[in-house]
Amino acid sequence: MTMTVAQLAESIGATLLGDGAGAVARGSGADDASAETVVFALTPPLFEQAVASAAGAVIAGAFAAQYAGPKPVLVAKQPKLAFARAVKLLAGAPPATGGVHASAMVAPTAALGQSVSIGPHAVVGEGVAIGDRTQVGAGVAIGDGVRIGPDCRIHPNVVIYAGTEVGARVVLHAGVVLGSDGFGYVMDEETGAYEAFPQIGTLRLEDDVEIGANTTIDRGALGATVIGAGTKIDNLVQVAHNVRIGRHVAISAQTGIAGSSSIADRVIVGGQAGIADHVRIEEGVILGAQAGVPTSKILRGKGVVFWGSPARPLPGVLREQATLARLARKRGRE
Amino acid sequence: MTMTVAQLAESIGATLLGDGAGAVARGSGADDASAETVVFALTPPLFEQAVASAAGAVIAGAFAAQYAGPKPVLVAKQPKLAFARAVKLLAGAPPATGGVHASAMVAPTAALGQSVSIGPHAVVGEGVAIGDRTQVGAGVAIGDGVRIGPDCRIHPNVVIYAGTEVGARVVLHAGVVLGSDGFGYVMDEETGAYEAFPQIGTLRLEDDVEIGANTTIDRGALGATVIGAGTKIDNLVQVAHNVRIGRHVAISAQTGIAGSSSIADRVIVGGQAGIADHVRIEEGVILGAQAGVPTSKILRGKGVVFWGSPARPLPGVLREQATLARLARKRGRE
Amino acid sequence: MTMTVAQLAESIGATLLGDGAGAVARGSGADDASAETVVFALTPPLFEQAVASAAGAVIAGAFAAQYAGPKPVLVAKQPKLAFARAVKLLAGAPPATGGVHASAMVAPTAALGQSVSIGPHAVVGEGVAIGDRTQVGAGVAIGDGVRIGPDCRIHPNVVIYAGTEVGARVVLHAGVVLGSDGFGYVMDEETGAYEAFPQIGTLRLEDDVEIGANTTIDRGALGATVIGAGTKIDNLVQVAHNVRIGRHVAISAQTGIAGSSSIADRVIVGGQAGIADHVRIEEGVILGAQAGVPTSKILRGKGVVFWGSPARPLPGVLREQATLARLARKRGRE
Repeated sequence: MTMTVAQLAESIGATLLGDGAGAVARGSGADDASAETVVFALTPPLFEQAVASAAGAVIAGAFAAQYAGPKPVLVAKQPKLAFARAVKLLAGAPPATGGVHASAMVAPTAALGQSVSIGPHAVVGEGVAIGDRTQVGAGVAIGDGVRIGPDCRIHPNVVIYAGTEVGARVVLHAGVVLGSDGFGYVMDEETGAYEAFPQIGTLRLEDDVEIGANTTIDRGALGATVIGAGTKIDNLVQVAHNVRIGRHVAISAQTGIAGSSSIADRVIVGGQAGIADHVRIEEGVILGAQAGVPTSKILRGKGVVFWGSPARPLPGVLREQATLARLARKRGRE
Repeated sequence: MTMTVAQLAESIGATLLGDGAGAVARGSGADDASAETVVFALTPPLFEQAVASAAGAVIAGAFAAQYAGPKPVLVAKQPKLAFARAVKLLAGAPPATGGVHASAMVAPTAALGQSVSIGPHAVVGEGVAIGDRTQVGAGVAIGDGVRIGPDCRIHPNVVIYAGTEVGARVVLHAGVVLGSDGFGYVMDEETGAYEAFPQIGTLRLEDDVEIGANTTIDRGALGATVIGAGTKIDNLVQVAHNVRIGRHVAISAQTGIAGSSSIADRVIVGGQAGIADHVRIEEGVILGAQAGVPTSKILRGKGVVFWGSPARPLPGVLREQATLARLARKRGRE
Repeated sequence: MTMTVAQLAESIGATLLGDGAGAVARGSGADDASAETVVFALTPPLFEQAVASAAGAVIAGAFAAQYAGPKPVLVAKQPKLAFARAVKLLAGAPPATGGVHASAMVAPTAALGQSVSIGPHAVVGEGVAIGDRTQVGAGVAIGDGVRIGPDCRIHPNVVIYAGTEVGARVVLHAGVVLGSDGFGYVMDEETGAYEAFPQIGTLRLEDDVEIGANTTIDRGALGATVIGAGTKIDNLVQVAHNVRIGRHVAISAQTGIAGSSSIADRVIVGGQAGIADHVRIEEGVILGAQAGVPTSKILRGKGVVFWGSPARPLPGVLREQATLARLARKRGRE
């Protein structure tokens, strides 16, 4: 979509400096800027680069309020957020591909909302409910009784097991598996063989959750696995049975969370972290990349950074690393 | 399915205390119990909770044999196992969806057993053999010459490369890839470019294996990759070419096993462990989460726990952690 | 395909010792050898085993040039490479399954080259271009505007997001996801909710790239994610937005590379390594398995091995491990 800079400023609630008559059509980085693109700058040096670029307009923070050069500038309180919203506006709504593709298999008892789109070769099971405007990609398999809210985007080849509940505005990237059986077995002491423990619980994703490509989230064994509203999970993450994740949590790629652990609101988890079973991570904790949290451990403290395996508060980890480095150097000199 | 408590007791070989006339229909946790559910308790305190719950019946161990209250109790030697079997009985057989879906593509030379079910958009290659009652989900792709035993459950969007062999009662969760090419290349010293080393071996999964969602298992380069009977593998695990895994092994999520390593019977591997190439892990070893086993290392000892990277016996790892913590604290005070 | 040993020697540029009249049909290991197979040996002891095997011919290095026994021997400068090429020759071209399967959905504006094969239930979007002889497997979903070069092999259930560019002779194993949205969010300070940062950049895979099963590679946020020519990536690897990987890089399974990091030519990365954001790894560095590279770190040195988390040159890591082990033992004796 094309908008004038003035229209864009108004739409995102920014203050326009300079001429707003030019038209912009999309966002870009300063390197790839052209007269049709809007860029953003978070610091004065980046702002200088941005106004020197070919960009049609620059979004910047309050520091740019005195700018009086020739480039149209949009001053926003939260400039990165303003840029994100501007780009989203310019992109317009995703194309409403519309309707059920002839090759999709939709069970007669499934209830589709208005303007739902079901892609080629998708399969929608018995009793499924899908909210308005939700887009289901090619090759997606949705099991019986699944409930999906409105305005979701489900990318190709996602698999959702029977009974899973998905809120509104949820994004599932390609290859995501929701509601698979948890890894629970009982060993028969007489035969020495594992038998499956029942994995008959549920999985619920609340509103505004986004799940990265090829991530797997297991259903509860008896109770529920829950992903709270606004939580964002990256690619190739594993969430085991009966895990409870709060709201506005961010979990980076390849992290694994074992059974029955809970993660409270606004926790941030780095990549490749491992959280064992029955762990409790309290509100606002930050867990560093590759950290390992042992079974039943409790981590607490808003903004407190834990790192290492076993995970401890960051200053202690750094002190231990420095101590060991010093001792090893000393030994090398002996 | 609904059974009386007395029927259930008989079916699972448990001793019934109290009135067995009530009907139960499924398993639940004590929290979610209702008159229709059966629950289980492994300890006396949990047993007290369970008999106080709304459950229609409680499965418990020998410690409950003297119970004389009003709740129907099923005393079993292995109560968790008894509960697992009870829930399985109550669930009944998975629905025989039956037959080949009209949208599936089954090669004319494929041989399907009795009551095999092939889901929508599945593809079954030339010369494939599939055993009785095996269920193949939507979007599954089975390459030429694959052999699959009876009573398997293959969830949607699994991919099985040509020539793979799968035993009886195997469960493959959604997104599993079996028999992909291993990561083997030869560098041409003249051009400095990698060329693929042949990945023309096979992959064999024995009976009663279960593989978690999005796990990948490569075929052998020249020989075979083998997963032994009764072995259970969690989600997002990587098993490389020519790995040999024994019987009744349990491997937690996101673990990786590099080429030509072998893991003997009854080994337990925690999550995110990394096992380099040509490693040998002998019978009954327990490898902790996030442990790392270097190339060609041998780990041995039934019930011996190894941890850390490089993996060592647990007591040594804990002693090193304690030593370093003490030295760092001491240094902090200096 | 069947060839005489003499034909094979000529085709791979090896010197034939002995009788070249026998026919061989495929490669094998010495254990599985038969009169129809060719094997290879990299060392004199393995050569002795190989000539004692049932193999129809043995490929070996210059050390075998004096061999005068009865087994046909092919002496090559790079014997493992010669074997790889021999096996490839014997395998012949992959079967040209040919044409667009009736169940595939190919947009009318897509341009398919000569002898392109599109498997059952595959979906090819608007404006897609696919080069000659490229094979697209069952259930593959290719988004609008994707460009794919000639002679590629795309295995079943791969998903390629709109706009991705793929070079010539690229292999994508089953379940690969290319061009998914990166993990980028902006927190709205007023609501405390994350909003998606635009992920509108591109992904480009150059020629001769191979990507392992279920690996995920995100598109750039604003710029591009790039995988250089000849680079090989194993299974379950995560490559985040705006990562730039050079030529002839090898990355083992389950490694993760966070946003905007760059990896130069001929780097080798072990399994389960974690590379944080904005890291720069310079040409020829070797990064060990499970290593962790912190944000913005620069690693340099051709052939220099880095290990541990945080990653340091190997000798220092080993010295620290030895120092700690000694101190812990000493403390144990006190």
